[in-house]
Amino acid sequence: MGGDLASYDRSLIFGVYSTINVIVFMSGVLIFMMQAGFMMLETGGMSRKNAINNIFKNFVDACVCGIFFYWFGYPILTGDSILVDWMREMGFAHTTENTSPGPIVTLNDDISLFFNFAFAATCVTICSGAVTGRIAPYAYLFFGAVFSALIYPVVAFTVWNPDGMLYGVIHDFAGSLVVHGLGGFAGLAGAIMLRPRIGEFNFGRGQIDSYRFAGSSISNAAHNIPISALGVFFLWIGWYGFNAGSTFAAGFDLSEIDLSATQDQPDMIANAIFEQLIGGFGQVVINTTLAPCAAVFSVLAFFMVTQNKYNISDLMNGALAGLVGITANADAATAPIAVLIGVLSGAVYVIAVIFMFRAKIDDPIGAFPVHGAVGLFAGGMFALTTGDMELGPIVFGTQMFYGAMICMFGFLSALVTFWVASRLMYVIKKLGNSQYFDYGPMPRNHLRVTPEQELAGMDLELHGQDAYSINLTAPGKAKTTF
Amino acid sequence: MGGDLASYDRSLIFGVYSTINVIVFMSGVLIFMMQAGFMMLETGGMSRKNAINNIFKNFVDACVCGIFFYWFGYPILTGDSILVDWMREMGFAHTTENTSPGPIVTLNDDISLFFNFAFAATCVTICSGAVTGRIAPYAYLFFGAVFSALIYPVVAFTVWNPDGMLYGVIHDFAGSLVVHGLGGFAGLAGAIMLRPRIGEFNFGRGQIDSYRFAGSSISNAAHNIPISALGVFFLWIGWYGFNAGSTFAAGFDLSEIDLSATQDQPDMIANAIFEQLIGGFGQVVINTTLAPCAAVFSVLAFFMVTQNKYNISDLMNGALAGLVGITANADAATAPIAVLIGVLSGAVYVIAVIFMFRAKIDDPIGAFPVHGAVGLFAGGMFALTTGDMELGPIVFGTQMFYGAMICMFGFLSALVTFWVASRLMYVIKKLGNSQYFDYGPMPRNHLRVTPEQELAGMDLELHGQDAYSINLTAPGKAKTTF
Amino acid sequence: MGGDLASYDRSLIFGVYSTINVIVFMSGVLIFMMQAGFMMLETGGMSRKNAINNIFKNFVDACVCGIFFYWFGYPILTGDSILVDWMREMGFAHTTENTSPGPIVTLNDDISLFFNFAFAATCVTICSGAVTGRIAPYAYLFFGAVFSALIYPVVAFTVWNPDGMLYGVIHDFAGSLVVHGLGGFAGLAGAIMLRPRIGEFNFGRGQIDSYRFAGSSISNAAHNIPISALGVFFLWIGWYGFNAGSTFAAGFDLSEIDLSATQDQPDMIANAIFEQLIGGFGQVVINTTLAPCAAVFSVLAFFMVTQNKYNISDLMNGALAGLVGITANADAATAPIAVLIGVLSGAVYVIAVIFMFRAKIDDPIGAFPVHGAVGLFAGGMFALTTGDMELGPIVFGTQMFYGAMICMFGFLSALVTFWVASRLMYVIKKLGNSQYFDYGPMPRNHLRVTPEQELAGMDLELHGQDAYSINLTAPGKAKTTF
Repeated sequence: MGGDLASYDRSLIFGVYSTINVIVFMSGVLIFMMQAGFMMLETGGMSRKNAINNIFKNFVDACVCGIFFYWFGYPILTGDSILVDWMREMGFAHTTENTSPGPIVTLNDDISLFFNFAFAATCVTICSGAVTGRIAPYAYLFFGAVFSALIYPVVAFTVWNPDGMLYGVIHDFAGSLVVHGLGGFAGLAGAIMLRPRIGEFNFGRGQIDSYRFAGSSISNAAHNIPISALGVFFLWIGWYGFNAGSTFAAGFDLSEIDLSATQDQPDMIANAIFEQLIGGFGQVVINTTLAPCAAVFSVLAFFMVTQNKYNISDLMNGALAGLVGITANADAATAPIAVLIGVLSGAVYVIAVIFMFRAKIDDPIGAFPVHGAVGLFAGGMFALTTGDMELGPIVFGTQMFYGAMICMFGFLSALVTFWVASRLMYVIKKLGNSQYFDYGPMPRNHLRVTPEQELAGMDLELHGQDAYSINLTAPGKAKTTF
Repeated sequence: MGGDLASYDRSLIFGVYSTINVIVFMSGVLIFMMQAGFMMLETGGMSRKNAINNIFKNFVDACVCGIFFYWFGYPILTGDSILVDWMREMGFAHTTENTSPGPIVTLNDDISLFFNFAFAATCVTICSGAVTGRIAPYAYLFFGAVFSALIYPVVAFTVWNPDGMLYGVIHDFAGSLVVHGLGGFAGLAGAIMLRPRIGEFNFGRGQIDSYRFAGSSISNAAHNIPISALGVFFLWIGWYGFNAGSTFAAGFDLSEIDLSATQDQPDMIANAIFEQLIGGFGQVVINTTLAPCAAVFSVLAFFMVTQNKYNISDLMNGALAGLVGITANADAATAPIAVLIGVLSGAVYVIAVIFMFRAKIDDPIGAFPVHGAVGLFAGGMFALTTGDMELGPIVFGTQMFYGAMICMFGFLSALVTFWVASRLMYVIKKLGNSQYFDYGPMPRNHLRVTPEQELAGMDLELHGQDAYSINLTAPGKAKTTF
Repeated sequence: MGGDLASYDRSLIFGVYSTINVIVFMSGVLIFMMQAGFMMLETGGMSRKNAINNIFKNFVDACVCGIFFYWFGYPILTGDSILVDWMREMGFAHTTENTSPGPIVTLNDDISLFFNFAFAATCVTICSGAVTGRIAPYAYLFFGAVFSALIYPVVAFTVWNPDGMLYGVIHDFAGSLVVHGLGGFAGLAGAIMLRPRIGEFNFGRGQIDSYRFAGSSISNAAHNIPISALGVFFLWIGWYGFNAGSTFAAGFDLSEIDLSATQDQPDMIANAIFEQLIGGFGQVVINTTLAPCAAVFSVLAFFMVTQNKYNISDLMNGALAGLVGITANADAATAPIAVLIGVLSGAVYVIAVIFMFRAKIDDPIGAFPVHGAVGLFAGGMFALTTGDMELGPIVFGTQMFYGAMICMFGFLSALVTFWVASRLMYVIKKLGNSQYFDYGPMPRNHLRVTPEQELAGMDLELHGQDAYSINLTAPGKAKTTF
């Protein structure tokens, strides 16, 4: 039936090509919106005095990631890097061949790169929430470059590339572990290394007294909740790209569909292909909607039981926790399971927040509770949960074990990266003599800005700008002169 | 010509499937952005002291809608609910069969669910603008649940489902009546039942004097116009999804196209199918652009004639009025008619605002003037206007009559729902003894927060947060302690 | 092979139709988001006292453009206008015929109109940044109408319509010259004609002393950097629509693909068509990502060398400069060239900012440095740069010459338009006697609001609103009474 099949295949393949590439491009744009979302979430959720510094970090890290992921990260992800050759030699990567009998419709390489860049930028930015308010900007940008060029790509390669060691061993649909677990635990490492902001948990109380600035504020309180809330909506919106786009991130294998079966019922065969193509996609979209809704109920219930005040920041982080939770399993969960994952993710978030508070680890925006704790929990526990609840115990153990390994890798690699950044900052400080790098005695390490800079706020100290002149207190501060 | 036709149909059906599902998914995402738009519009347009409460309402109602629409609303909409069976028994619904001779390309069920969820969430949120600033949060969430699960789905089923009583009787393309009329009149009911905020129309002047808080403000003025303006842009952007996506909400009937006619001119037949598929879609997009532009001119002209101050909030609401106005007829109107509808919608908005002011009904964001008044006007008057202005008088009367019925249904069902909510709040208050529910003597009903809470602002009283610490007046207020 | 080819062509043509129209529609929505982006960028980057006026200008100009571009501009662009007939008579336009041997898949006319409207609105809005803070709102709206109806369409017709004189002579992919150069130079003309805001470059120092208002501020400082930063993200996001959508703005010529070559390898031929369709698209997306990232590095390096403060506004404008720079060449540049263009665009931006500062031209948001200077530079220098760096000197000279002509046309036509607006404002002022138009003695022209209005802020003077009541200083100011 040569001619017929040929003409059939051409049009089919073209249609599938077109569909998945358009969806993945639009998904990439939606994910890129998450950069704006994180920027607003963190800026609004932090003190006014560091607003511009937060914008700076979130904006420039996307640019750093754009360059470094393009040149170093993406080749690792696709297996075209010297590093992957070395990993193959060392046994950390396989060499597989595509043995699919039918045509696999793949993404355009540039669109795939754009989509994966957006993932990498998200993963880097997750950390920024945990270290914000006291990290030296250059140290953070160095971390972002290493994370974009090396750490995230190696993990993503290992889990998602067919040559990766964990490919087919664990299931992580859109990155509860690979993106959120990794990023959240890296943020935890940063938060521990940096120690709390001055004033949190009574940390640095002495410094507050000795460095009291005229007109400066020691408040670390969130300064602009509405913009923070808008950021959460951006993240939710972007997550539709994150999850839905991931349906096609690996292309689409036409061989799974029996083309000859209903050859004489053209609409049935088109329907079958379409349902396979879009059906899973639709399920992902619904799961991505139900899980955050359920997680908000979960956090709301916690507030009802324990207190009569309803902190909006925690409710919104609850929605993000639900989104992180469903990310590993959005392709397999049925709607009731998505709701269950959402409820449990909200609970895990609350527990993690209390843990962080008790452990006196200062994670200003809740990057670890939202992304790290929930990512590990949901990626480890629920990534395998399908509609009929067939949880094989061995496979479950494997998932949990490797999930924890990924998070541990994120934690340790961030520790090393921040340590190197700290040493580099020290060297630069010795080499340079500018005011910016003249840190003075630091309580712990060279990752942090000076107590003076922290107390006065990095906006005025490092950027020479005031984020708002609404009070009319600082006219002209925002002008640059040449 | 079996084989040829078969191969032709397969590819065609697949292509149409793919096109409409991708567009409807992206439209769903755009409509979901409207949640962020309403949040910003209302938060920025209200007083600072209730900013977080506004965010809470707009954020949590989307989550409530997600859960309740999924479980109860959508089955009603698709006719798979016990309620619809009962409606059929009672004669409020038909039982029709699909008798289309050709293949109808339908949406993926999950994508249709997502798209309709976004509609339902919009309809619920419309009400929130009218009741904001004094409604007890739980009463509002109860209302949102009932509206998502029952009221909106029943109306949408009746108008849009082929089994619905009004299907084919009236024309409402994307919901000037079903979404905006219904929601706007429900908001009107809420605004009347709740009575004005303290301080509006000199309402509760005595209470202001007796409950003067140190440092609190009685101002109800809009506190952040820029974020409000951004919200309006989000709504406009989301409306492209609202209207354009609705082109394919019911799928696409291939039988309308004569496939055999130009069998030997392949590009012409593809062109014909495509123009039928996308042609109406493009027209919708243009109408959705022209109507709000024209409505802004209309409001601007009103300001020119009556005063020399140009209130940006009214101009932006004018654009929304134009969008509401074109929603019923975006598929049929030609461009000049879209402009006409826009101009008239702007005028109706202005008249409705003046009416609300004179009637002393406090609708803080203008939900009724924008959605209710314009929705009824445009849905009743213009939904049938086609390019050649064939307005049948009987059909026009039918449209107007049922349009008014839908709005009346929204008004009455909201009255009942809010009354039940009020009773429930009373019961809960009697059962509980927490500070939150201890309302004290209420001027009218249990829907409202206490005068103390209203005057001090719900942000501090109910959420324990201050939306901004830009003034540095309330350091540390935003922290939750465990 | 008639039947086969026929069936092949139908499905192919339909698929291509569908793909390009969906992409262009979504791109149009993304570009429309840039209106919100410009609004936020300008509002946040200007003084608080003119926040509402900025919103007014940016919002209403989009509406003006919607109406005027629809009725006058788009017919010019497509060559269906009397003006184009006159241009043909005068020799400023050709009359060509479509001689393509194969089917050209064109955009749906309404979707093309929507897409081009979004372009026109962007071009108009670019100017607003340069003239903001002192221009009389009506003068600006008059300018916007003329620009939408006449100036932009004529230039876009000349470069992009096959009948245009410069079609095929110069290469401007998505409008570095046609949109950004034109708009930026028009803004420069406006900034020069209007002279600086009072207080900038010590301009009008005497007036400040004589018109000191109680409680008013002379500060021109940026008042809300976070919202400004969000605006930049919106612009970046919108640029994906701007550039990627432009890939298909002229439709798609199927004749470029040899359909018969691999007739028996259906997936290869589908692949070939697809790669031709989406391949260039993907390249555009990557270039649009890399150039702004690189430009930010460029501006960051400048700050490192010259000072130790990192002005976030300049970094963000740097990203926009990179985006403007790649716009002319996004279809042809390879990734390394995109990075190079980004780096150089950032440098050109910095040089232009310094030039403007030294020349004492007050361009509050940097419209000329970002759009004008970089647009001319990149459109003139780099639009022809392809992967293999084949820069023919003559062609390069042609590109540079006509690029400069386009910018000069923008500058001169804006001069004339603003002059006419100034005369019109004078006439209206004489005719009317309202407070709004009673300008009093003006230092230079009738384009400007009065010094009193400028010093007190246009928000209170012209709009009767205060953008924020966060300070609780002006309760009730935002209410309109009837």
